[in-house]
Amino acid sequence: MGDSSSNSSERNTAEEVSRILEQSKELQESAATLISRNSQEEASLRQRALALNSNIKRVHSFIANSVKKGSLDPKDAEKLVEELSRASYTLSEGDAAAFLPSKSYGRFLRMFLGPINVHATRKDVQLKVKEEYNSFRDRTAYLFLFFPSLLLLLRSCVWDGCFPALPVQLYQAWLLFLYTGLALRENILRVNGSDIRPWWIYHHYCAMLMALISLTWEIEKQPDCSQKQKGIQLFLKWAIMQGVAMLLQNRYQRQRLYTRIALGKARRMDVVWGETAGVEGQIWLLYPILFVLQAFEAYVGLLLLKTALDGVTSEWQVITCGILLIIMAVGNFTNTIETLVSKSRVKVKAKLKRDKSRSDLLPESSS
Amino acid sequence: MGDSSSNSSERNTAEEVSRILEQSKELQESAATLISRNSQEEASLRQRALALNSNIKRVHSFIANSVKKGSLDPKDAEKLVEELSRASYTLSEGDAAAFLPSKSYGRFLRMFLGPINVHATRKDVQLKVKEEYNSFRDRTAYLFLFFPSLLLLLRSCVWDGCFPALPVQLYQAWLLFLYTGLALRENILRVNGSDIRPWWIYHHYCAMLMALISLTWEIEKQPDCSQKQKGIQLFLKWAIMQGVAMLLQNRYQRQRLYTRIALGKARRMDVVWGETAGVEGQIWLLYPILFVLQAFEAYVGLLLLKTALDGVTSEWQVITCGILLIIMAVGNFTNTIETLVSKSRVKVKAKLKRDKSRSDLLPESSS
Repeated sequence: MGDSSSNSSERNTAEEVSRILEQSKELQESAATLISRNSQEEASLRQRALALNSNIKRVHSFIANSVKKGSLDPKDAEKLVEELSRASYTLSEGDAAAFLPSKSYGRFLRMFLGPINVHATRKDVQLKVKEEYNSFRDRTAYLFLFFPSLLLLLRSCVWDGCFPALPVQLYQAWLLFLYTGLALRENILRVNGSDIRPWWIYHHYCAMLMALISLTWEIEKQPDCSQKQKGIQLFLKWAIMQGVAMLLQNRYQRQRLYTRIALGKARRMDVVWGETAGVEGQIWLLYPILFVLQAFEAYVGLLLLKTALDGVTSEWQVITCGILLIIMAVGNFTNTIETLVSKSRVKVKAKLKRDKSRSDLLPESSS
Repeated sequence: MGDSSSNSSERNTAEEVSRILEQSKELQESAATLISRNSQEEASLRQRALALNSNIKRVHSFIANSVKKGSLDPKDAEKLVEELSRASYTLSEGDAAAFLPSKSYGRFLRMFLGPINVHATRKDVQLKVKEEYNSFRDRTAYLFLFFPSLLLLLRSCVWDGCFPALPVQLYQAWLLFLYTGLALRENILRVNGSDIRPWWIYHHYCAMLMALISLTWEIEKQPDCSQKQKGIQLFLKWAIMQGVAMLLQNRYQRQRLYTRIALGKARRMDVVWGETAGVEGQIWLLYPILFVLQAFEAYVGLLLLKTALDGVTSEWQVITCGILLIIMAVGNFTNTIETLVSKSRVKVKAKLKRDKSRSDLLPESSS
């Protein structure tokens, strides 16, 4: 009996194994079918989206020309442009957006990651990525407040007015990591359709470069260190202010994103102007702080250049960091102004057409 | 007549605009349908793949138990295990692999990139990523030969035996970028199913850390610089050898990949042992060089520790870099040996069953 039962168990196992083999083949076929069908359908959608997009542009410029030539009534033209804008909003903000050619990857991402695809097809995944980016910024903003404050505190309480090299270098290494992460994430956001201003990404490249250079910057230990370490002190104070500004910016941006998600769940295409309501107050707090910060950034840069020219420290690192800070300050200022201008332009338009819905001009706020 | 023609053109334009609006809505619907249908079908495939995978494991251990208890003939068991292996190969190497849960992302990728998906669904894309990784390694291997050679050459011909700080620091910054890129790419490869040994990724983390530390390493300018710069010199010589080894490794790995792609196009599931044929000769060249390199790596590490202990330079950077080099040398050695052992084990098995096809044991070679 033992033999026959072992025989039957063997038969059962053999059957199960061949069933498994069969299933693995079926699964392979289903997977292959799904993948190939998908790539066909995606290609066709991609073609339709591209054609529609170029159609919209063509008709748009045709209308503009007709108005110029006087063959189209400006009022009628405005109505038509409005409808076109709605079509273009549907295309760029809806699910079809996944099939529009994504923004070019840029050298930076390819340099670090190679040719891997970081474009998310689903809108909710894209929003999740953006949400995670915001919370990453939140976390780092607190550290941005904490690390330099700690260093400055220790300097006056423990270190007798002189920074030791290691803690400062650890902080600089953290900055390098942080800015690299931010630059990578922002490039990924761009690929996923965020129209973050290119400057804010360049700004992080500059910051990466500065963190890298500051690592090679010798931290003086001589008796007159407090004089020679003035640059580091200023830099740390600027970093604390940066932390405050980041926290404010994050709160503002997050509120905008939540409003947007909520709107998307309701009727994404129709209502868009409510977006900046309710955060108005924060803008009046945010922008003055941003401008003060930028002025201070330029001031630190100039001070660094001055110490180099005065001959207190004459290392190339000091000069380069000074120049980089000034470039960043000017760039930040210009871009903040541009964002402000485009926002108020949008607001004026919104007032003029309060009960209409146009949306293709909607700007993404600055980072 | 002008008025009537302008009227009809206006009507035409209006029609075209409403057609565009219609098309944009249709496209949005098609896209939404495709995306939601896809996520359903993918979820179902994912479930099937998971179930099959756990079934294979269950039956596998059941067979092993049955053999132990004597209720299954070992020879029959071997046949069954062989079939199971074939099923598992179909599952893990075919298109269905895209629907198996991918290896966990790991902190490193999430730290730099956030929660974006870097898993490619299509096998050909995955192979393209790997191919690009190899060519990235190729390019860097030449630079690995070129940069340190140039620095050493300039030192003896132009710089009078003393390295200036900037070129060395530029080289160190390049190393930091390079190792960060390699670590990111290798993590991405892992997510895409490569079973690259974890050590080779840890190794690049160590190398990143070392490059970062070496940036903060003061480059002495005093008259006795040639004594104090001994560490840098040794390090550069080691880097040149590293370049040679990388070139050899790349050639070897690339040949393996091409064979694999070719096999995949033919009958991926059935033939796998031919893979390492034809590159046998390179292995006999590769491994001795790897061992010499590892010994030299440990030697450089020990020399760095010695200079620190002798008091020639007593910075913490020197000690840390020394320790890191020794850790890397030991880890590299252990892992190369393990790869060799698992390869020869595979070869013995292959000889024993030359005309059978088993493949679930197929190891990825070390990086």
